[in-house]
Parts: sequence; C-alpha cells; structure tokens
Amino acid sequence: MDRDIRVVQVGLGPMGLRIVRHILAERQGIMYVGAIDVAPELEGRDLGELAGVGPCAVPVSGDAARVFQETKPDIAIYTTVSYLKRFLPQTDVAIRNGVNVISTCEELSFPHFVDSELTARYDELCRKHGVTMLGTGITPGFLMDIRASVLTAACKDVQRIEVTRRMDATLGRQSFQQRMGVGMEMDAYRAAVAAGAIKGHVGLEMSICLIADAIGWALEEVRVMAPDPVMAGIPVASEFFTVGTGQVKGTEQQAVGIVNGEEKIRLDFAAYLGAEPSYDEVALYGTPELRARVTPSWPVDSGTVAMVVNLIPAVINACPGLLTINDLVPVSFKSGNMAGFVCQAG
Amino acid sequence: MDRDIRVVQVGLGPMGLRIVRHILAERQGIMYVGAIDVAPELEGRDLGELAGVGPCAVPVSGDAARVFQETKPDIAIYTTVSYLKRFLPQTDVAIRNGVNVISTCEELSFPHFVDSELTARYDELCRKHGVTMLGTGITPGFLMDIRASVLTAACKDVQRIEVTRRMDATLGRQSFQQRMGVGMEMDAYRAAVAAGAIKGHVGLEMSICLIADAIGWALEEVRVMAPDPVMAGIPVASEFFTVGTGQVKGTEQQAVGIVNGEEKIRLDFAAYLGAEPSYDEVALYGTPELRARVTPSWPVDSGTVAMVVNLIPAVINACPGLLTINDLVPVSFKSGNMAGFVCQAG
Repeated sequence: MDRDIRVVQVGLGPMGLRIVRHILAERQGIMYVGAIDVAPELEGRDLGELAGVGPCAVPVSGDAARVFQETKPDIAIYTTVSYLKRFLPQTDVAIRNGVNVISTCEELSFPHFVDSELTARYDELCRKHGVTMLGTGITPGFLMDIRASVLTAACKDVQRIEVTRRMDATLGRQSFQQRMGVGMEMDAYRAAVAAGAIKGHVGLEMSICLIADAIGWALEEVRVMAPDPVMAGIPVASEFFTVGTGQVKGTEQQAVGIVNGEEKIRLDFAAYLGAEPSYDEVALYGTPELRARVTPSWPVDSGTVAMVVNLIPAVINACPGLLTINDLVPVSFKSGNMAGFVCQAG
Repeated sequence: MDRDIRVVQVGLGPMGLRIVRHILAERQGIMYVGAIDVAPELEGRDLGELAGVGPCAVPVSGDAARVFQETKPDIAIYTTVSYLKRFLPQTDVAIRNGVNVISTCEELSFPHFVDSELTARYDELCRKHGVTMLGTGITPGFLMDIRASVLTAACKDVQRIEVTRRMDATLGRQSFQQRMGVGMEMDAYRAAVAAGAIKGHVGLEMSICLIADAIGWALEEVRVMAPDPVMAGIPVASEFFTVGTGQVKGTEQQAVGIVNGEEKIRLDFAAYLGAEPSYDEVALYGTPELRARVTPSWPVDSGTVAMVVNLIPAVINACPGLLTINDLVPVSFKSGNMAGFVCQAG
C-alpha cells in the first residue's frame, strides 16, 4: 500500500486554512504532519480545529526548522506572501531540510520576470538539496495562461491570444469586493488607485510571461494598465454592498504583451456585481482561429485550493529545481526556432 | 546557436505528407534528414517534391535501418498504421538506433488498454536504448481527453465528465465524409456498420482511458456504442455529396467509461453535413460545475499535424520510455488516494 503523502502547512491565513480544510475533510492518501505560522497566538493550537473541521493532533509551531526536522514531510504548502523577494528567503529552511515546496505566492508563478538573479540562486539551491519548488494558483497559474497555452498545442500557427475573465463579483468574499472598489464613488476609486490601495488584479504580468514562455515569444514589454472602475448604470447589490446608479460596481483592467513591436497577448480582466453572463474566454488567432469559453466564470478561491492540492504529486515527482508550471506542462504551440525548445544538456 | 532538430519521416500517406509540408514550409529550427516508406514506387523520390513544396534534397528510402544509421536523427515521425500490434514492431529499427518516436497511431495514445504485456515490453526496450515514444493527435490525444483533464486541475472534486464533439462534416475531406456515411440510405449505412466498413470514430476508448488515467479512476468497463446515422430532415450538400431528405448526412456515436458501476465519463461524437453551431464542449460535474465550449469545432487534420509537430521538443526532452501524454502533462484533478500518484521510485 502507498505511504500517505506527508505535508506541512506554512501560513495559516484564509487561503492556508481553506487548503487545510479541503485536505483534511475531502482528500485521502495525504496527511498533515506539521503546521507553521509566525503568529504567537497560534502556537500550540490544533490545525484541524483552526480550520474548523475538528482536531487532527497537529499543533501549530513557530519553529519551522524543528517542524521540518522532526516531521520529515514530502512537501510544504506555503501560503504566506505574494512577493518573491519576501517569499524566497522564507523557504530556505524547507529547502535545506530536503522538503519540496508548493506555494500560492503570485510572483513565484513566473519568478524569472521579477528577479532573474535571485531565481537562479534558488533554482541552484533547490537542485543542490534535491527539492522542487513551484508557484501555482488559478490566476496566475491556470485560467489566464496555462488554459490558453495548452489549447495552442493543437494550433499550426498562433498570431495572437486574448484572454477575457468576466467575474460576477457578487460571488466573491467581502474583502474581494472591497478590493474591486464595490460601492465607492468614482473620485474615491481614482484616489485609491493613485494611493495604491486599489491594485486591481495581482499577477497579470505573470500570466503574460507564462504564455510567452510556453510559446517561445521573446517579450519586449509587458504593460499592465491601471485598474478602471466599472460604473453601475442601474442600482445593484451584493450581500455586503449596495451600489447606486453612478457608483462603482467593480473593476476592469487590461494587460498586454508586446513582441517585436506587436501586441501578441492581451488579458482583459473584469469583476463587478451582476456580470451576466460571467465567463472565461480564450480567443486564439492563427490556424485555426477559435474561441474557448468557460461558463460560468471559474470560482477563484476553490480554484486556487484545487490547483495547489492537485499539483502536489506532480511537484513531488518532478526533477529538482525552481520550476514554473510550463516545466510540468510542456505542451503548447512552439513558435520560431523549434530547436530552442530542446534541452541542450539532454 | 541551437543545432536544428533532425527528423526522419516514416510513412508518406496523406497525413505524413501534410506533416512534411507543414514542417518544410512553415517551421524553423527543424529539418528532415530522411524519409522512409515501404512503397517501391517512392524509392528515391524527393520528400519535398512529394509533399508539393519543392525539392529538399531528402530522398525516400525503403531501407529504414540504413536511413537511421546514416542520418542519426533526433526523432522519427511515424504516420503508418492505427493499430498497436502492427505498429510497435515497425519501431524496433528506430529504437535500436537510439531514435525517439512520435506517432499518430491511434492505439499508441493509450497502449496499455490494447495490450499491456506488449506495451511493457516496448517500454522496457525504449528505456534500454534511452529513447522516448509517444502517441499523439487531436482525437484521441487532445480534444476529447487532455483538454478535459487539464481543466479538472482547478476542480476540488470531479464526479462526472461529458465531452461533446459536433463537427460540420462539410469541412472534412471526401474520404472523411465517406467514412461518416454521407449520402447513404439508412439500410446501406446499417449494413456497412454490420460489415465493419463504417467504424465511426476511431479512438473513443483511448480518450476514455486517458481521462480516467489522469484522474485516477479505475475503469471497470469502457463501452463504445455502434455508430448511428444522422438523417437529413431537409436536403443538404457538400462539395462531394448531395443528401436528400431521409438520407444519411453523417454519423453520431457515444462511448462511456464505467467506474464502480457508475458512468463517470461520456463522450458524444457527431459529424454531419451542416452542423451549426459546430463546437467542442467539455461539461464538468463536481466543484465547480461548468461548461467549456470551443467554437467552431476544432479542425481535425490541421490539429493532428499541429500536435505532432508542437510536441516534438517535449518528446526529445522527456525521460526514456513508452509514454502517454499524461506523462508529459501531469496536471488534472486527482481522485481518491493521492499517494497513488506519487512515483514510488523517486
């Protein structure tokens, strides 16, 4: 019989606890052997109780090194921060203890774009210690990038890719609706964007990089536009907000990838109350030319939980290194010099 | 600078020549160094001239061993036969000469289902000689299987999968329309099915196996229904056929995969003149529940050419063995015992 996969959870915020809940309540063949969080008030608390699914005899600890040494897990799930430069140093203790890492850190989904020197250093460190590290999630990591690039595998030519995500923000949590500016006046929205309080969708540049990397387009520019308000033409409401005519009901935002002066990739993100129909669409221009539309739009929270958990076996099985999902899924249209996609070492 | 990928083409029927034409006319960084066919009348003919894109100084030969020894290619593209037991022995000469193999052989896309003993033997032979072999194509190999299983990567649970392909047969070649029974009377169609002259869509069982294998469903039965005629309610015509009311305008066919007495996978294939809208749809039942529809339906011939060519780098890079595309794309919902997806050797 197969030995259960042994997991340590690092970071017990809302996303971390959703993952814990899903694994404990709905998965077999995988078990938590440890939990790590820096918050002193969580020290010694039971992981299962924190997640709301009853005790699981795994206490939370702030001493990462001791947890990894004592429990010898197969993999650590990091749900801590979004930014690479803060994230990577946190993983030293896992890597040096021979523990694979999977994380929802947005910038980790395409770390080369953020800091290629730091990425190379951690890739080397992972390979030295024989562990694999992967950043994953649903956006970036699936809906606006991998879903598109996998579709191009059956294309003889790809000239341009557009991905549209149109979410009904009513289905999101209160904090998500707040981040989308729901219920604000236009002036307050603009001021919040200028102050950095409203950031729009995090990770559009990662999705553009993932698509370009899969297809072999050399990006000369990644341009992420400022988030724009979507105004309510008629009153609309969610569980948390009431939006009158002329107020903000959500956010839209575009990003483009430029190759040789041409726009090759366009991402179009919108989340607002009452979007109907909601959908996720990939438009491929080339041979063939077609549209692939998912309805309704993919739920973001359960999607990220699913990606993290479903990819655990693939990360454990993969060759050591700081990987992107393109290393796990090498299937897409290959543009230009085909020989450039062959590993020269092999 | 990267060295060009060196390719030998084995089999110069319509599909083989389409691939040759595409590579010679539209791809860079990849070159033909040899061509093999058993037809004596092709001996010495120029590969590029046969493909209709002008001479390329690669003569066709019937002596496979000599071609592989003299040209030392990175990979051989086999477009010869559909059935595994005839196909695998053809590849001995490539494997023993250290040449990777990619093929449109339908049964090669999930060979374990056809003959697990023979598959294990060739897997062993590939690993002994350090080569990779993969069966690919658009159906089976992408549209009705991989496209669905990749989507499930962002699912917390999958209870059932339905894939529908609804093609406008008008866009297919004359031989394809003929295979779909276009223009026949119902009695003649039924007789042709009984005699094995009309087989429906080849490879539905492979697609069911690929989905089940990705997700970890233990299939207890794969049931492929007999092809059924689609009757014309009003007259309809293609470039090649005129179909009157009450005559056959195409074929529909279902296949199901049974797990623990339950139907978990259903494939629904239809190709007939005038299908409008034409589409390829995946319906996922679980968490979340949604539909992913590609419009119009994916063109079959260019799709297969694209899959074969786009996957060449991945096959060259992959670990040795007789692989399926699930080995290259380990990304899907994982049901049941998660530990069962971890390579125990690793």
